[in-house]
Amino acid sequence: MAQLRIAMAQVNPTVGDLAGNSGIVVERTREASEAGAHLVVFPEMVVTGYPVEDLALRNSFVSASIKATHELAERLADEGLGDIPVVAGFLNRREGLGARFGQPAGAPQNSAALLHQGGVRVVSAKHHLPNYGVFDEFRNFVPGDVLPVVRVGGVDVAFAVCEDLWQEGGPVAAAREAQAGMLVTINGSPYEREKDNVRLELCQRRAREIGIPVGYVNMSGAQDELIFEGDSLIVDSTGELVARAPRFEDTLLVTDLRLPEAAQDEPPTVPESGIRVVRYTASADVFASYPPLEPVVAPRPDPTSDVGEVYRALVTGLRDYAAKNGFSSALIALSGGIDSAVTATIAVDALGAGNVHGLLLPSKYSSDHSVSDAEELVRRQGVNGRTVQVQPVVDAFENALEVSGVAAENLQARVRGTLVMSLSNEEGHLVLATGNKSELATGYSTLYGDSVGGYAPIKDCWKTLVWELARWRNAHAESTGEAPPIPEGSISKPPSAELRPGQYDTDTLPDYDLLDTLLDAYIGTDRGLRELTAAGFDPALVERVITLVDRAEYKRRQYPPGPKISSRNLSRDRRLPITNRWTP
Amino acid sequence: MAQLRIAMAQVNPTVGDLAGNSGIVVERTREASEAGAHLVVFPEMVVTGYPVEDLALRNSFVSASIKATHELAERLADEGLGDIPVVAGFLNRREGLGARFGQPAGAPQNSAALLHQGGVRVVSAKHHLPNYGVFDEFRNFVPGDVLPVVRVGGVDVAFAVCEDLWQEGGPVAAAREAQAGMLVTINGSPYEREKDNVRLELCQRRAREIGIPVGYVNMSGAQDELIFEGDSLIVDSTGELVARAPRFEDTLLVTDLRLPEAAQDEPPTVPESGIRVVRYTASADVFASYPPLEPVVAPRPDPTSDVGEVYRALVTGLRDYAAKNGFSSALIALSGGIDSAVTATIAVDALGAGNVHGLLLPSKYSSDHSVSDAEELVRRQGVNGRTVQVQPVVDAFENALEVSGVAAENLQARVRGTLVMSLSNEEGHLVLATGNKSELATGYSTLYGDSVGGYAPIKDCWKTLVWELARWRNAHAESTGEAPPIPEGSISKPPSAELRPGQYDTDTLPDYDLLDTLLDAYIGTDRGLRELTAAGFDPALVERVITLVDRAEYKRRQYPPGPKISSRNLSRDRRLPITNRWTP
Repeated sequence: MAQLRIAMAQVNPTVGDLAGNSGIVVERTREASEAGAHLVVFPEMVVTGYPVEDLALRNSFVSASIKATHELAERLADEGLGDIPVVAGFLNRREGLGARFGQPAGAPQNSAALLHQGGVRVVSAKHHLPNYGVFDEFRNFVPGDVLPVVRVGGVDVAFAVCEDLWQEGGPVAAAREAQAGMLVTINGSPYEREKDNVRLELCQRRAREIGIPVGYVNMSGAQDELIFEGDSLIVDSTGELVARAPRFEDTLLVTDLRLPEAAQDEPPTVPESGIRVVRYTASADVFASYPPLEPVVAPRPDPTSDVGEVYRALVTGLRDYAAKNGFSSALIALSGGIDSAVTATIAVDALGAGNVHGLLLPSKYSSDHSVSDAEELVRRQGVNGRTVQVQPVVDAFENALEVSGVAAENLQARVRGTLVMSLSNEEGHLVLATGNKSELATGYSTLYGDSVGGYAPIKDCWKTLVWELARWRNAHAESTGEAPPIPEGSISKPPSAELRPGQYDTDTLPDYDLLDTLLDAYIGTDRGLRELTAAGFDPALVERVITLVDRAEYKRRQYPPGPKISSRNLSRDRRLPITNRWTP
Repeated sequence: MAQLRIAMAQVNPTVGDLAGNSGIVVERTREASEAGAHLVVFPEMVVTGYPVEDLALRNSFVSASIKATHELAERLADEGLGDIPVVAGFLNRREGLGARFGQPAGAPQNSAALLHQGGVRVVSAKHHLPNYGVFDEFRNFVPGDVLPVVRVGGVDVAFAVCEDLWQEGGPVAAAREAQAGMLVTINGSPYEREKDNVRLELCQRRAREIGIPVGYVNMSGAQDELIFEGDSLIVDSTGELVARAPRFEDTLLVTDLRLPEAAQDEPPTVPESGIRVVRYTASADVFASYPPLEPVVAPRPDPTSDVGEVYRALVTGLRDYAAKNGFSSALIALSGGIDSAVTATIAVDALGAGNVHGLLLPSKYSSDHSVSDAEELVRRQGVNGRTVQVQPVVDAFENALEVSGVAAENLQARVRGTLVMSLSNEEGHLVLATGNKSELATGYSTLYGDSVGGYAPIKDCWKTLVWELARWRNAHAESTGEAPPIPEGSISKPPSAELRPGQYDTDTLPDYDLLDTLLDAYIGTDRGLRELTAAGFDPALVERVITLVDRAEYKRRQYPPGPKISSRNLSRDRRLPITNRWTP
């Protein structure tokens, strides 16, 4: 057996920021080198950021990524870090591939580079391209067919990219046939509730299948609608967990491993998997024996409830969306209700109270407790509060154009939307829309009214989860000796849009416990009218809710983006036909 | 040689309207039967409408499509139409296919059914699945591997679906190897400027390659953002055009052909293409000789300019978007400028003047000619006009919240947006956004202001094309002895948003001739800074415009849908990362 110290860099690149991302690689490589690591591994597409979506189809962007990756190799050597082999994801193109049906123009590839001694030494690319849910990779990339195997300190380490670990055959099978001593995958694997155990179990299964340790390097932070919670880890050849990084944090996980020494006879380079093995020797000889570091195994989150973890994911999502779009402050219309209270609290935790602006916009239908609950939230959290009476503006509209019923209700919401956007324009804050997933699913919102904004922190949270988040956040504050940030009144009162006298959500929608269960069954598990009725839901209710969901497609398309926390999300919203006449 | 009378039904189904679409098939089959046709062919996915997008992934929808297709076969027989073989596209699933990576759940297929004698006799599915531009078919379908060959009147006719005709190998090669006497493809092929000649040339090339006549059946009408102009056609085995349907019209193209009689010896059923040939005999014997009909060859559009054809496409797009979404009337904010004038004129041509509502919303910055040009348009076209002064509402906002500069400009646009949406809410009109492609590309619009609405008829038209459309429409009116619908003032004056005194588009943007040329080069041909500069554009201008385009991503995502008329469209707008920090 040989010893190897591997550093896994759980970092947070920004899509398009090639210089900044390269800087992260240099900085973390220096840190790894100082920690005595023999090998540093960065996540999928760290040079370009991930996901690049259609930027992969822009030729000049692919060229810029390739150039940046070569320059990165040179810079590492220039800064005295050329001896340590570095694996980093980047956007490459497959040369010599003519235009062909079913293949994106320019043959872009989701690639991994081995940087060593000032150059790019081995290049490979993702073999299995996911094309479901949030992924469009078959559309944007061509697959790779190379398994890089790098000899470091006398150990053969094989590398693969993300989805390649999840699929049978391909690079995983090739790693075994190539007689690698370890398999490391580089990932941009988005957060989903309870996905962490799935990842660990996958690594364990693969390790046992191929009989070697498996390392898993994931991103941290958030990009656009995706959150990356990290959870980088290593399991040994029996599937036992060896090391695990803390979640939602940028970190360098440095771990000492005992790995099988590579055979002197070169094993076959064309295994049966159809993958071509490309070998590179960074250092042939086994390193002299040294005392190993104690492995880091970050504590696991609360096993009884993941609500606190969801909260942390939402804070991460907003923090990075704001930062990566150049915003340092946020603006929220505070109604006194639960949705705006939770959104504001997330914003305070992400950006700091001084950077959060709350706009109170009471109308003649606003109840006293709405105003007082909103004021109480401003007071408790110390955000910047401002009150504007909307009635005079509503009156001016109604003088200009007579409206009634739903049109009058929507008018109030649009006056609020315009006031929020005006203040954002004037002062430069990111506007946060406060809609939850139950509202978005059923279309219970006003287009260009409460739906205005740049980001919607709780759009993938059912209303019942929003209440859970509020209770968790208050309990968390109490457990640390702080005052609960969210006024109890906002949590306990029955939800109301307050767009007409005595209006409650339950006038239009069923009770949220029932509604959310039904919505999750319809959207999450793709069951139709017959199956839902057979599962015990009232047929008339099922039909009404399905119709609401399908008809709300247009509103969902025009809603601001927000962090995805579930594979059972409204991902369809991007793709359903705009015209959807069909209901089951 | 044998005679065959083939009826190609160029029809306009609606996505999700299974009953309505089946009704179209029955009605056109009856018409074909009465015309003495031996075979009727309908477009791709006629039973479900096209494109179904993610509806393909909804299990209950796939089941409903299969049920509707079987019921359609029974109904045809019940109504005395069982003897005539009918080919119709539908949504099917591939049975017995387990869950697998890279394959959508439930294995939906973009399929063709042969209906005959009350049953579904042969089922096949599209082999080549397009996954670029407006297509996501690899995401939504699994490929087929069957080539149906139907013997009708002693002639073997092979069928394929859409993209299968465009690609080498697969069904086209199989049709030759199966010794078919004719190949007919069923299509949902969207309109693009100048695509008609591409289609004809493709059919000609394929006919010559495989030495048999080729028929091409396409949809008419529009669905969501796609327009289908029909252009169904038949070429003989030498590639000579035999028959061609009129464009943009629902029609039944009935054509007599002389085709080779099928060999008595059954040719091999597993040709080298990997496609399995499935044969069905509707009628084995050659039909008795009869006098053929004169083939229909619809006249070609103006070969010197396609502007009139683009105009017709836009009218078709709006007509069907309104109808398929249940709107009979439209509402447009009329500024007196060219964009709203052309949008209103399209609406009048699509929906009738009585169903078009123009809202004039002058502010203190509106010039006299803006108001008079808008009033003149209302007068000339006889649309319903109404004027609302926006200043009192703007004043009410400014009393509530002080704003300046761009925020004040945007406020005016948002007051207009809210007024338009309020009237739509109150009276039920479809709101038309009037932005053009140059504006959308550069982000020259106000979120929730001039960008509100349900449909944007000219969003894929460069500003220079908008002027061409106006001039073409006026000239067309004059050529038919009518008064020009668009006031000359709206066409000739320099464009201005009139959101501050003396404001012109050229204050912010370059001249539109130059801008549109540059935008088309950047967006249409994916050239970066270096290539555009090398092509002679000013480097500073290129950098400024590229930055504008990339930063306008968020606004484009929230813009209403509109008809696509070009493959050089902003299709990226759906998929670019929301955060796009990279500029070349």
